[in-house]
Amino acid sequence: MEYSQQILSELKKKGIRPGDYVVVEKDVHTFSGLLMPKSQGDSNSLIVKLDNGYNTGINFDKNTKIKKGKGEQEKRPKAKIEKYKPDPTKPTIAILSTGGTVASRIDYSTGAVTPLETAEDIISAIPEIKNIANIRIRPVFQMASDDIESYHWMTLAKKIEDEIDSGVDGIIITHGTDTMHYTSAALSLMVQNSPIPILLVGSQRSSDRGSSDASMNLLCAAQFIANSDFSGVAICMHGSASDDFCYIHPGLHVRKMHTSRRDAFRSIDVLSYAKIDHKGAISFLRNDYSKKDKKRKPHIVDRYDNRVALVKIYPGFDYHILEFFEKAGYRGVILEGTGLGHAPISQTDDATKLHPKLLETIRRMIVGGIIIGMTSQCAYGKVNMNVYRPQRIMQEAGILPLYMTPETALVKMGWSLGHTKNSEDAKKILLTNVAGEILDRVDVQAYE
Amino acid sequence: MEYSQQILSELKKKGIRPGDYVVVEKDVHTFSGLLMPKSQGDSNSLIVKLDNGYNTGINFDKNTKIKKGKGEQEKRPKAKIEKYKPDPTKPTIAILSTGGTVASRIDYSTGAVTPLETAEDIISAIPEIKNIANIRIRPVFQMASDDIESYHWMTLAKKIEDEIDSGVDGIIITHGTDTMHYTSAALSLMVQNSPIPILLVGSQRSSDRGSSDASMNLLCAAQFIANSDFSGVAICMHGSASDDFCYIHPGLHVRKMHTSRRDAFRSIDVLSYAKIDHKGAISFLRNDYSKKDKKRKPHIVDRYDNRVALVKIYPGFDYHILEFFEKAGYRGVILEGTGLGHAPISQTDDATKLHPKLLETIRRMIVGGIIIGMTSQCAYGKVNMNVYRPQRIMQEAGILPLYMTPETALVKMGWSLGHTKNSEDAKKILLTNVAGEILDRVDVQAYE
Repeated sequence: MEYSQQILSELKKKGIRPGDYVVVEKDVHTFSGLLMPKSQGDSNSLIVKLDNGYNTGINFDKNTKIKKGKGEQEKRPKAKIEKYKPDPTKPTIAILSTGGTVASRIDYSTGAVTPLETAEDIISAIPEIKNIANIRIRPVFQMASDDIESYHWMTLAKKIEDEIDSGVDGIIITHGTDTMHYTSAALSLMVQNSPIPILLVGSQRSSDRGSSDASMNLLCAAQFIANSDFSGVAICMHGSASDDFCYIHPGLHVRKMHTSRRDAFRSIDVLSYAKIDHKGAISFLRNDYSKKDKKRKPHIVDRYDNRVALVKIYPGFDYHILEFFEKAGYRGVILEGTGLGHAPISQTDDATKLHPKLLETIRRMIVGGIIIGMTSQCAYGKVNMNVYRPQRIMQEAGILPLYMTPETALVKMGWSLGHTKNSEDAKKILLTNVAGEILDRVDVQAYE
Repeated sequence: MEYSQQILSELKKKGIRPGDYVVVEKDVHTFSGLLMPKSQGDSNSLIVKLDNGYNTGINFDKNTKIKKGKGEQEKRPKAKIEKYKPDPTKPTIAILSTGGTVASRIDYSTGAVTPLETAEDIISAIPEIKNIANIRIRPVFQMASDDIESYHWMTLAKKIEDEIDSGVDGIIITHGTDTMHYTSAALSLMVQNSPIPILLVGSQRSSDRGSSDASMNLLCAAQFIANSDFSGVAICMHGSASDDFCYIHPGLHVRKMHTSRRDAFRSIDVLSYAKIDHKGAISFLRNDYSKKDKKRKPHIVDRYDNRVALVKIYPGFDYHILEFFEKAGYRGVILEGTGLGHAPISQTDDATKLHPKLLETIRRMIVGGIIIGMTSQCAYGKVNMNVYRPQRIMQEAGILPLYMTPETALVKMGWSLGHTKNSEDAKKILLTNVAGEILDRVDVQAYE
């Protein structure tokens, strides 16, 4: 797709091409940044990658003025691409790239964001990494993390198996941050008994922004793989608002807790495994992790049934919503209840009650073989369905309290149902602690 | 309902009555606590209120041993009830009680939990409060907060108006904690221009537990009403795991963030208004609040349309879920998206994609007059739908990014739709900042 004739003629007049740094004035606003090539959307709208790294569209009309400018990015030296030679004395890391901000960089000659696809690419972007390990890049997908779903988790599990078989010392999966914790939960269940560390790494700011966390997160992950005895699935992301360290978050107990901050990820209800800086200084906060052992065989369980849902409870929740899942053939529903795991089920003759049938619907669904699990929308803390009478009634109806985050519970439900057509068998798998997903305690420090 | 004959005969033999402190041994477990009268559930199950305040059911069989014991509670002196005389030199606070753990106490003679219904009741439970203010108790409901919904919010708004008209200096609403932040959001919109402070107070542990927060939370609220110039709706709850202070959280930017801790409530994306201790020492963290002015007339807008839903997005989200709301006649849907406000809408020809029709469904719903708002499941941080292409496509389809918590957005949607049958008019109300619910900035310290 091209810009409109109106825009093209204006650009020609000013000698501006996509990839040039421009200043656009419109009404009271001024936008400075890189003019992007047009690929989608309204052809009469200028796309400018702002200095803060965000793309913005500016509708072009008579009041829009565009001129060439000088940006911070222009001052940067061009990356020097050198041919990459593996060092046999160093560990080898496979980077499986799935897309997202972390594994891309802007090409200043065209303004396009391009994925880092080869070892040369990534080493030119983060030259320090070659001092840590030999790098193999394996592009798997190139997509926003929002579109990643169970099919992709299963594909990744198989790719991980291939890399482990090939003898690498660790795996980094570059991934968009939005659903990274769902993927880390899925891979924790799908790749059991991993002999090596498997770290998911994302970035909150793209690598062409001064404040990008891409480089530090990748370096910390490489250092952690090279210098620790950890194995298993974890997330490596910024630990604070400064560039001082990353946390290694357990793949089953972690969540993106902030929309934009670099330290968006937090371990939930447990401590992170470790802090690590980009120079490789590690301090472990826990020692209950599985140790690296390259002789160990991984156990790949790439199963999933998509007929599962995660449903948030709120005041006035309508029981017909659950009825929808019943009618649509869903096999499992995770409720994200309030507090310790509540839903408005009280049976009452109060005419003002809108939804006295919620409990009845839940009972019928469970009798019909649908598994219903209860988690909490509180973000932190375990559910406890033994405290109040309505909860005990829900438990008697067969709702299962799950000591997991709602996100991990959803993934565990789909994974459990993927094993068998028999609901009772799936329920047993759901309630079995396969990879540490079921918490027997809550670490208070995780909430400080 | 009674206990089974088997249990009753055992109790008679041992001379135990409900309300007695007992020790129950079964298999390897020992339970100590108050034997509760039987009201619900399996008649052959003993109900014991444990020392930690939780009720537990113990199935009674041959291996179950029960004996009388001595508990901490027995050592407490009985509360002395004295006739309460108002002091004309002190401010007057109306306590509207709605139920929940905070406004109840255990009656040790019967083991039953009873609401604190009169001024004498509450003053006998928290005698220090009479040094702060004159107290009027107004029982409004007696229910778990999970069953509270829009009808109750509207009833509370009218009761608040009555109390303001009667000239009180402040209002405390005792409320279960689970949905307290939904109620505080609703009352912030329904009671505008309040001349006095309206504080919601709950407790995470019942008042018969040594670690109960009920008393301190109520005292802090009374002190804040008596000693500050604040007006408007806020939540007053424990500020730390110690008994040192409470926070005054803005009613529209607050969430229960932990299932069980006393400091479960956190201000979201903004600072709390103030810290206050039970002796009345206040330190304000913000000064952008409306000042107390008893001459001001409140504006009560007790409207709500229940045809609204809050829907969490997750990997593999099924567009049929939104279709359900369309067919069921809903007028508004709040999506709790991932990250900055994403949903898996990418149109693709990848056969493995389950839900390419999500965007199509959203477009059709919006054209049909359903308002769809986007918020984030990240817990902290604003949505921003200008960064990535899929989001811009969603905005072009008419999805509204809302700079609020998902919970406040849900309540604002229902409240906006309650004003008018016309969706366009409701949308204008939704996007108008009525009571500070729309954030124009995010306070980074709120996430530290």
